[in-house]
Amino acid sequence: MTGASAVEDALNRLEKTEPEIRAWVRVDADGARAAAGRSVDGPLKGLPFGVKDIIDVAGLPTECGSALRRGRIATGDAWLVHRLRGAGAVPLGKTVTTEFAYFQPGPTRNPHNPRHTPGGSSSGSAAAVAAGVVPLALGSQTAGSLTRPASYCGVAGYVAPVGAWPTTGITGLSPTLDAPGLLAADVTELARAVRAVDGTQAEAPRHLRLLLWPGTGPAPVDRAMLDALKRTGRSLAAEGAAVGDLGDSGLTRRLADAHATVMAYEAARALADEAESPEFLSDPLRDLLTRGRNTSASDHTAALELRYVVRARMLRLLETTDAILGPAAPGPAPHGLAATGDPVLSRPWQLLGLPVVTVPGHRDAEGMPLGLQLVGHPDRVGRLLGVARHTEGLIRRITGGAP
Amino acid sequence: MTGASAVEDALNRLEKTEPEIRAWVRVDADGARAAAGRSVDGPLKGLPFGVKDIIDVAGLPTECGSALRRGRIATGDAWLVHRLRGAGAVPLGKTVTTEFAYFQPGPTRNPHNPRHTPGGSSSGSAAAVAAGVVPLALGSQTAGSLTRPASYCGVAGYVAPVGAWPTTGITGLSPTLDAPGLLAADVTELARAVRAVDGTQAEAPRHLRLLLWPGTGPAPVDRAMLDALKRTGRSLAAEGAAVGDLGDSGLTRRLADAHATVMAYEAARALADEAESPEFLSDPLRDLLTRGRNTSASDHTAALELRYVVRARMLRLLETTDAILGPAAPGPAPHGLAATGDPVLSRPWQLLGLPVVTVPGHRDAEGMPLGLQLVGHPDRVGRLLGVARHTEGLIRRITGGAP
Repeated sequence: MTGASAVEDALNRLEKTEPEIRAWVRVDADGARAAAGRSVDGPLKGLPFGVKDIIDVAGLPTECGSALRRGRIATGDAWLVHRLRGAGAVPLGKTVTTEFAYFQPGPTRNPHNPRHTPGGSSSGSAAAVAAGVVPLALGSQTAGSLTRPASYCGVAGYVAPVGAWPTTGITGLSPTLDAPGLLAADVTELARAVRAVDGTQAEAPRHLRLLLWPGTGPAPVDRAMLDALKRTGRSLAAEGAAVGDLGDSGLTRRLADAHATVMAYEAARALADEAESPEFLSDPLRDLLTRGRNTSASDHTAALELRYVVRARMLRLLETTDAILGPAAPGPAPHGLAATGDPVLSRPWQLLGLPVVTVPGHRDAEGMPLGLQLVGHPDRVGRLLGVARHTEGLIRRITGGAP
Repeated sequence: MTGASAVEDALNRLEKTEPEIRAWVRVDADGARAAAGRSVDGPLKGLPFGVKDIIDVAGLPTECGSALRRGRIATGDAWLVHRLRGAGAVPLGKTVTTEFAYFQPGPTRNPHNPRHTPGGSSSGSAAAVAAGVVPLALGSQTAGSLTRPASYCGVAGYVAPVGAWPTTGITGLSPTLDAPGLLAADVTELARAVRAVDGTQAEAPRHLRLLLWPGTGPAPVDRAMLDALKRTGRSLAAEGAAVGDLGDSGLTRRLADAHATVMAYEAARALADEAESPEFLSDPLRDLLTRGRNTSASDHTAALELRYVVRARMLRLLETTDAILGPAAPGPAPHGLAATGDPVLSRPWQLLGLPVVTVPGHRDAEGMPLGLQLVGHPDRVGRLLGVARHTEGLIRRITGGAP
């Protein structure tokens, strides 16, 4: 497909789906057509992508889902946009984010059931991919902001290791936790985009070694999600993988608590200027910033001490284990659009700054998607992507999904 | 003094000193005159300041001392520039930085002896203040980049706690270590500028409690510098301060080593694009990036584990101690302009992300400046500035310096 026709297809599909899904803040049809015409002859030539509206695209506003940023035009591309353009891809427009990538939702609906949230904060990017408008969209994660909407919308998601991809041109919440990432319809497409961004090549696993993590330390997890995890683990073991259990005993709950401390402390500093206009902030964001201002440097330091003590241990573990497999969210997308669901199952892993791939394919009894997440070693992203691609194929086989 | 005359005075002084000192990359005389005419009626009204050339000033290039950034015009002000403009201050121009704020020097000479380095990487900012051109200049520190030139040039310096001042608009080397800061002729002027930036008010200490750190763990320290430290400590004790010794036994050497690991690892990621043009990089920077690429995530994590374990302990110590007092550099500015001196005495404290104030006033037998550094608690910067102002006054008395 030529670039021009891929952009036209996206625009046609958008016209059909957008009135219901409301995934986009701004569609730059003319800009995308022009960019497709002159796009670089790279591996993603002409591929249209959506950009979460905390990520800069030169010449378009970056409004961060907040009245405080209305009409603020970006003068340059974020690093990630720049890399994708360098591979020939074409930004189609900006997608809905929650307010400053925290909890206050935008208008987006879940393409699998418009009465359910798409999750957040990368709400529009996940929904735009799930609705088939774009094959690729950019997101970011501080606390479940990419893995949760990927799970709720039934798409594949990649969160880069913290620090691996520059956050230049992204309005962040927490330098310690923020990581850019990608959403795509499946892991194969996702891996193609990761390779275009930084050259990482997915490696097929030979002797797969996994540890299962049920996620029940930090939160109650739905029966359907636990079944999806167990079924996947059993099938992997049946084909010869070494599948063990991650000993947890409260550790991931402590990590989740420490994550919340770090996020509040750092968000209060990152958004200190915005905090001076509290009348323009939602209640949840105002509460976060107040909590952060009331957090001491000692509490922040204790949380980061836990981060690195556990991270050192986890990296040793991940030298002999390919990935940790667990639920990407406590259950399917909750009913209603007033909230975006619970990020708690992301918090332990985002605190540790590890790369994550979410794998779609499972569904609950009502047909709503259930995503699993694979957490890996930051120096072995290619391996992690290979494991995720393999796991996705296996889930398709056991659920009878499309190939 | 009105803003307009302060700018004219700076330009006159610059015309006299610049041919020898070479502290400036670019002087924006017309822009500064215009800005002075319309400057905000704030606490720094009309005050001209220099800006290290890794920090953005809207409309001026940010060239980072590198051919790779030549002519790159900044479209907006860095956060710190924005705050100072909001207090009425006026950017006079951009000051010399070493290449990407690492080791490769620019042309700047030390105003106290032009055959000696001014230190780096904030070379031009320290020299411009020392030469009396501007009362205030902006710097930044990843490893001694502010405290070392402040010490060598005999001016006061402030390094903000890591994370306290946003690095927006600053070309960084390491998100974990980078901190913006200020240079001024003395601590009183420095404290006035810090207050204008973030509202922190210097607090006069009542019962001063200090721990002395001779710096000899990480490096040999000059006799003159050790004498300056001891003399200051004795005088503080004589007027009633509780002055103890910081137990060290190799800890700060381990911290300095860990700092170097973190810096290399993170710089290799921050400058990954630049590393693709090695022909435009100096040998020291190329070596740093190579080292960083060869550092594993495990080594980086182990270094950060040490950071937070020790930081937690140090914060507890700094709840009952006002500051740690030590040498800001191993000795006076070395002879020659081919290198900028050794940052090693900054590494332990910058790894811990603590605020630092350097205090001028001591000199060696040749009359070259010797600076001391005071390291404090990140939640008690006002106290740290008060202790520094007090210490500066005492050093003036014991050295017979100007009041």
